[in-house]
Amino acid sequence: MNVTGPETGGGIGDPIQHGGNLSRARALFGQALEPWVDLSTGISPHSYPHSPLPGNVFARLPEVASAEKLKALAAGAYGAPSTAHVAAGPGTQILLPMVADLVVGKGRAAVLSPTYAEHARAARLAGFEVLETADLNRLAEADLAVIVNPNNPTGRIVGRDELLALAAIMRGKGGLLVVDEAFMDVSEASSVADAVDAGGLAVLRSFGKFYGMAGLRLGFVISHPETVARIESRLGPWAVSGPALHVANEALGDSQWRQAMRMRLKEDATRLDALLAAAGISVMGGTSLFRFIRDPRAQAIFRHLGEHGILVRRFEERPDDLRIGLPGESDWPRLEEALKTIERAK
Amino acid sequence: MNVTGPETGGGIGDPIQHGGNLSRARALFGQALEPWVDLSTGISPHSYPHSPLPGNVFARLPEVASAEKLKALAAGAYGAPSTAHVAAGPGTQILLPMVADLVVGKGRAAVLSPTYAEHARAARLAGFEVLETADLNRLAEADLAVIVNPNNPTGRIVGRDELLALAAIMRGKGGLLVVDEAFMDVSEASSVADAVDAGGLAVLRSFGKFYGMAGLRLGFVISHPETVARIESRLGPWAVSGPALHVANEALGDSQWRQAMRMRLKEDATRLDALLAAAGISVMGGTSLFRFIRDPRAQAIFRHLGEHGILVRRFEERPDDLRIGLPGESDWPRLEEALKTIERAK
Repeated sequence: MNVTGPETGGGIGDPIQHGGNLSRARALFGQALEPWVDLSTGISPHSYPHSPLPGNVFARLPEVASAEKLKALAAGAYGAPSTAHVAAGPGTQILLPMVADLVVGKGRAAVLSPTYAEHARAARLAGFEVLETADLNRLAEADLAVIVNPNNPTGRIVGRDELLALAAIMRGKGGLLVVDEAFMDVSEASSVADAVDAGGLAVLRSFGKFYGMAGLRLGFVISHPETVARIESRLGPWAVSGPALHVANEALGDSQWRQAMRMRLKEDATRLDALLAAAGISVMGGTSLFRFIRDPRAQAIFRHLGEHGILVRRFEERPDDLRIGLPGESDWPRLEEALKTIERAK
Repeated sequence: MNVTGPETGGGIGDPIQHGGNLSRARALFGQALEPWVDLSTGISPHSYPHSPLPGNVFARLPEVASAEKLKALAAGAYGAPSTAHVAAGPGTQILLPMVADLVVGKGRAAVLSPTYAEHARAARLAGFEVLETADLNRLAEADLAVIVNPNNPTGRIVGRDELLALAAIMRGKGGLLVVDEAFMDVSEASSVADAVDAGGLAVLRSFGKFYGMAGLRLGFVISHPETVARIESRLGPWAVSGPALHVANEALGDSQWRQAMRMRLKEDATRLDALLAAAGISVMGGTSLFRFIRDPRAQAIFRHLGEHGILVRRFEERPDDLRIGLPGESDWPRLEEALKTIERAK
């Protein structure tokens, strides 16, 4: 457990370093092979095969009817009780401080850690004193509790019963449990999206990761209808872009693709684990969209792959940790080649 | 002047009716010709002719370097002092409550009215008591003053000297003047984007209207760098989508197109005025992207056009007002035909 002041490297307002930044990778590894193989995110390499965008999808304001359809499809796909329990916004990221703001009076926030660093930043921004803790029991003491489930980057899963018990505690004192289910699409864990009507609970879902469409910016809050109304009031009209509505209204209605993709990503993850194992690197956890490694050679592995034009995710504050995303179909040989020459553990 | 309680039709959280909602138009005029000619917005019918979107623009997270380039181009195009004076978000709409939140301590807001209704709603949402007034002098009494310049829908212009004097007053008491320059691209009015460094002033710019790309969702706040940093902290990373970055990074760098389009829209507006005049309807004001009509026959004109499948903007709270946007190239004959049979003023 550690009670945090500012994030590593600065104050509340300073940006946190994330995966997916190839400019920084190029600055770091000037000599590396182009094009970069970017395995630094948890975004699927298999984008949803949507139909061509209609010509007016950029020109016109997003249609209200299309945005309503999106909410209905999201409620079905994610298991929310109804459309009224779903708010859609331009990416989950921008929703984080809005959700933290829902807790009246603020006070203390607790984030089950280590995890996606933006949760603690958003809570601080919203005026909370933030505890980042690995102890689930400490979360009940807070006014705002945050759990990423399954967790990014470790893959740790918190059970449904524990989550619902914690939500009941939060509800009892006017607090809020936020469960970020950004990687739930590929998980064996149980979503709690169906349980939001009782109150005290907000579930976040991310469209871009599982559907390989992170550039679209689309995320959801699933919560009690009153909470949803407050979020929507803050978002205002036209929060979701025309292209995002077009793609997501096809994708979220396509349960066959979803089912098949879950299988495929599982196979990809197994293939990745096998490659890493052959190079003497053991996977500690993760989800089908990323694998988590805790290894004293982590920095050396990061550099070795970087010198071969392959970017993986390291964590400034935890030098033994790495997260490796799934290669796209044409990127496997590059990874296999690079792993062949990695120095084995002694 | 009127001191407002809730907006017409409900409380703070209730959505305001806007232009661009064809589903509502279809419900209202079941028998009308399809496809609808939508003149209910102030969005240009001439979309920017961007190059094809690269394949990875949806799949990948928006690149940090591309977002930085956008800010630099926006600073140039809009006349901001530097890149550090510009924050980019997914549409101006979502930025409104964030900007209102910048005023510490809140208190009173004053919105120069009538104008775009979302400003008053955003200020109430942020906790202000809101005065909607037609008297510019009353704005100096507020902690948050809002002026849309040129105004939507009337086209009224407030001069640069008056704006800068008001910004100085706001600065002196820790308040903020928000100047929404959503339609400044087509105006003879003077932008105050170059004057934000002194403080007390935030300028809003909208990408989608002039570039005919409202579905992309892209808007800007131009203000003092400290204010910009607070907005960006709230937006978090990846606030602008991949498609928006691609299109806007071409469009904002293309000053030749901008210059030519200003002329073309002016010609379109003159053509529209002539058509309306031939039907006995006088235009009171507006900008090159929309024309403003105040006429006792406004409701009859709205219905007559609606029955011909042409949607214009009416205003529930001001029944004599109409706003008419520019037809696209193929839509002029439909409008001309419909106006031929309109009942002339006695």
